[in-house]
Amino acid sequence: MGTTQLETVPEPKYWHLKTVLSEALDAEFSVGEILPNERDLAARFGVARATLRQALEQLELEGRLQRRRGVGTTVAPPRMGVAVGAAEHVWPGAVGDAWKAADCTQLVPPAAVAGVLETGADETVHTVRRMRMTHGQPVAAELLYVPASSVPDLSAIEAPSGPARARAVLRELQRLGLEGQDSAVELGSARADDAKVLDRLPGAPVLVVTTRFFAEGRTAAVSVATYRADTCRLTFGDSGGVEVHHDPERRAS
Amino acid sequence: MGTTQLETVPEPKYWHLKTVLSEALDAEFSVGEILPNERDLAARFGVARATLRQALEQLELEGRLQRRRGVGTTVAPPRMGVAVGAAEHVWPGAVGDAWKAADCTQLVPPAAVAGVLETGADETVHTVRRMRMTHGQPVAAELLYVPASSVPDLSAIEAPSGPARARAVLRELQRLGLEGQDSAVELGSARADDAKVLDRLPGAPVLVVTTRFFAEGRTAAVSVATYRADTCRLTFGDSGGVEVHHDPERRAS
Repeated sequence: MGTTQLETVPEPKYWHLKTVLSEALDAEFSVGEILPNERDLAARFGVARATLRQALEQLELEGRLQRRRGVGTTVAPPRMGVAVGAAEHVWPGAVGDAWKAADCTQLVPPAAVAGVLETGADETVHTVRRMRMTHGQPVAAELLYVPASSVPDLSAIEAPSGPARARAVLRELQRLGLEGQDSAVELGSARADDAKVLDRLPGAPVLVVTTRFFAEGRTAAVSVATYRADTCRLTFGDSGGVEVHHDPERRAS
Repeated sequence: MGTTQLETVPEPKYWHLKTVLSEALDAEFSVGEILPNERDLAARFGVARATLRQALEQLELEGRLQRRRGVGTTVAPPRMGVAVGAAEHVWPGAVGDAWKAADCTQLVPPAAVAGVLETGADETVHTVRRMRMTHGQPVAAELLYVPASSVPDLSAIEAPSGPARARAVLRELQRLGLEGQDSAVELGSARADDAKVLDRLPGAPVLVVTTRFFAEGRTAAVSVATYRADTCRLTFGDSGGVEVHHDPERRAS
């Protein structure tokens, strides 16, 4: 990693430093490698520690670096393309589904979800908790809200809770004719329970995908899925993954 | 806003505080209203300033609060649903397009984009800069990369640069038969130029949507669009907007 004096650059120092660091990562470091400590890096590039930290934070947001307690700052692998918004609409739990059902409980859903499902203020709904694995890593945690009216033939006796109950709810849901679905993605922060599943700290930035499933002229189920923002790139559209990374400084490797 | 002592709660304090604050926002504050200062808030809820700041940061990530220099912390309006990934595929610049062409220059694209476009290492491509307005606010800034081979009949004389040149490139692009497109969304940080257009600080979290346009059996253009993560919820799929907000604490209002 060469030394570059940044004193004369007109753009914000940390921004230019970020570009220089990014190029150094491409040229001199491999995935998983631990960066030198902040003091050494700051000295090398002739910047204040605060400036260095800003640049490192940017690179972390962009998925170039991972900072882990007790390990230090490492070079992140490229983000994984994870398909959301299937080309063919299928119910959660259909064959080939990337999600694994973990549990099912009865909960009063958040008011916004209850509004969409048109359930009463204190009405509980079947709440299936699922997780999604890609390349052996957990990439997303989901809460799927299914009102009792969407699964009228579900027997309470069959399984009171747990994965068996979750599968029973999904199986009953698939008896409805799926008319369509739509999704939205937005920035959020990891709830404590999701953070645990995703191996992140509570409050870490996440991408939240909310999907409505339509059947019988109404919203029959709502999924709220929380994806790791550091490791995931969410793909949608005709084909599978998009290979282009957004970072203009990033080299194809 | 009532006083709640958080000493006895087992979950992280800032997390519980976030929930309490979120409920207070729904119950007692209206959009645009300025919150009391940090010292007063911390005293009211019986927490340290650091804990309060963590909770405020979470709420900002989730789009509930806006923190602006010289103004203070205000209650954010609900995020706008902004459609990405059109149901019908159309070229950028087609009738009804939400984007406004601002400029066009010749640039060597980032290596990752060049790789997808299969352009040479030092080959310049037409680079159209566009912006997207929703409800009178800039919500996204885009760089659309179009190799010369995709617009072979473009005349250099017509307009050397600027919005007229941008429109000429888009017009020529529309002569190709669009075979499909795909998109990916990921977390990023605002580049200085995009930040300026979007009225954000450089490095602010953004949602980066990369779209490949396919024609004549190859990638004919690549769009890299940077959306404000604080004000936007990106929608895709069958219907327009999803009305469900991801935050479980959020009340329908």
